[in-house]
Amino acid sequence: VTTSSDDLRPIRWEEGRLRLLDQTRLPAEERWLEIPDAETMAEAIRSLRVRGAPAIGLAAAYGLAVEAARAVAEGMTGRALAARLDAAGRLLAATRPTARNLFWALEALARERQAWGEAGEDPAALARRFLERALALHRDDLECSAAMAAHGAALLPTGCEVLTHCNTGALATGGGGTALGVVRAAFQAGRISRVWATETRPLLQGARLTTWELDRLGIPHTLIVDSAAAFLMKQGRVEAVLVGADRIAANGDVANKIGTLALAWHARTAGIPFYVVAPLSTFDPALPDGAGIPIEERGVEEVVGWGGVRTAPEGTAVWSPAFDVTPAAYLTAIVTERGVISSVSKKGVARLLDRG
Amino acid sequence: VTTSSDDLRPIRWEEGRLRLLDQTRLPAEERWLEIPDAETMAEAIRSLRVRGAPAIGLAAAYGLAVEAARAVAEGMTGRALAARLDAAGRLLAATRPTARNLFWALEALARERQAWGEAGEDPAALARRFLERALALHRDDLECSAAMAAHGAALLPTGCEVLTHCNTGALATGGGGTALGVVRAAFQAGRISRVWATETRPLLQGARLTTWELDRLGIPHTLIVDSAAAFLMKQGRVEAVLVGADRIAANGDVANKIGTLALAWHARTAGIPFYVVAPLSTFDPALPDGAGIPIEERGVEEVVGWGGVRTAPEGTAVWSPAFDVTPAAYLTAIVTERGVISSVSKKGVARLLDRG
Repeated sequence: VTTSSDDLRPIRWEEGRLRLLDQTRLPAEERWLEIPDAETMAEAIRSLRVRGAPAIGLAAAYGLAVEAARAVAEGMTGRALAARLDAAGRLLAATRPTARNLFWALEALARERQAWGEAGEDPAALARRFLERALALHRDDLECSAAMAAHGAALLPTGCEVLTHCNTGALATGGGGTALGVVRAAFQAGRISRVWATETRPLLQGARLTTWELDRLGIPHTLIVDSAAAFLMKQGRVEAVLVGADRIAANGDVANKIGTLALAWHARTAGIPFYVVAPLSTFDPALPDGAGIPIEERGVEEVVGWGGVRTAPEGTAVWSPAFDVTPAAYLTAIVTERGVISSVSKKGVARLLDRG
Repeated sequence: VTTSSDDLRPIRWEEGRLRLLDQTRLPAEERWLEIPDAETMAEAIRSLRVRGAPAIGLAAAYGLAVEAARAVAEGMTGRALAARLDAAGRLLAATRPTARNLFWALEALARERQAWGEAGEDPAALARRFLERALALHRDDLECSAAMAAHGAALLPTGCEVLTHCNTGALATGGGGTALGVVRAAFQAGRISRVWATETRPLLQGARLTTWELDRLGIPHTLIVDSAAAFLMKQGRVEAVLVGADRIAANGDVANKIGTLALAWHARTAGIPFYVVAPLSTFDPALPDGAGIPIEERGVEEVVGWGGVRTAPEGTAVWSPAFDVTPAAYLTAIVTERGVISSVSKKGVARLLDRG
């Protein structure tokens, strides 16, 4: 079954309501939530009901937009309105620390607010500006996905088998995809014959979400435990590794889902190209290198059990970073909507960013 | 709480009965099974109620011993007895293909049977020989563990943090341990300050069993998902990696729990020593290298769900090798009961084996 891109959009503005697919329920159940305010959206982001750096950015923008609409509908103006939007922005910004896109999207709305203040418009105009900006970011995200898919697919040979980590498809974005968007386009162009999907512990985004997307897209795929990737690569079954990113520093160091560094090291050892696919909204040129990227640590309970079934003994200490940092030196290329950085370094990154 | 080695023996011959700790129930429940015959033991091995290469070997030997005792008690003799023991031996040999120790233990009992036949003894003598051999293998295993622990602990610096994979302790052996036996001795000698335990998907022997043992031994430990090992090593937190083995070829290539190759590649990239700890019963000098080691593939259901909770979509294809093969070139040393092979190669392995 091949599905149009539109069918997999995980966040939707429809008939004046904001709807979000609860990804924690997938693949068992396709449950849609209505998001009436920023607090509900903040909870959804914290709980990974929406996840993936580009999707988190859009979710925050939409969340602030519905909050503004609500405040205006309640008749709020002036300082009260400003305080409410400040609080909502802080709440959304505090949900998850690593994805650059979250802050990038909130900054885009902050610029709208600035322009609105300078124009001396009424509160209703601010709510309209926020919603229009969120919708524009969403349209831009879909265009970015399409451009990344085209640039990335061109890098792959015909009929190859690729490995991907976590979920970087429609569900991780506005409905297109980063690494999995490239996979989709490459499959349609005959360049990919099979996708190896890592399950991606602890929250199993690969097992739950990537398989679900690939199944809907009719792309042949095989699921493996994360630790089997090295053995698979050693057997020569993988011709490229494709992953997304949560934040990219000025020198090209990449923060992405825990396990990405492991795959990058494996790819280097096995002599396989390793591609990062991310929109420019994921770049953080203010950070010189990956050492400055804040790495979220998740709770013990995500590792010591599943679905209410306890696995490790009570009281077991756990270290559970949600992300790791892969040095630029391990990347074959970074694929963006503006083109491919094939020499990943401070210079290579700056050259692409300056082209804008 | 420090526990004596004896308390963790997972297989016991007590008052004429063979008892086995059902490791699939750990850590939630310490459930002991009574094993009356070879078929029950074969099921226990296939289902990983007992696992770990040395423990599997002992389990097979005890399983054939109780089968022989039962057949003799039923009055079986001559060809009928021979046929029954042949069938039981084939059943046990077919449980799991990778661990060399399984075949090694069955070969030891086959030699008893040969000697019994040549001596012209009665059926009861065969049953006694089998049980005595199984008990002797068990005693030898405990001695091997103690010797490996002493040799291995001497390799570690004072107060270091080490990483281990899967479970290689008392539960994986007759009650001592391979890699985790070294960890225990090194901790008691002040050489280890913390153990990082990988959870070891899909069956979570690290999360369920290694944490359980380390907790009982009072050794500080932290659990991580398998894919976090690279990031941990990159941060300089790990000073040595210690793993067990299921089969070692003549050139030193090692088959061990899936994910071992990943850790060996990581250790090389991070510049950390990588030690394999295994008794001589794990060596298979008839195999020139690791390419000839049969690698068991496990079922889909172990990857796509846990405790009855389904995680991946129905029909998802899975590749689930239980083991991988690490080339000898990635090993810093192999620790055996006879000493340390510090130059792991065909020559280094042969030198140690010939010393016997």
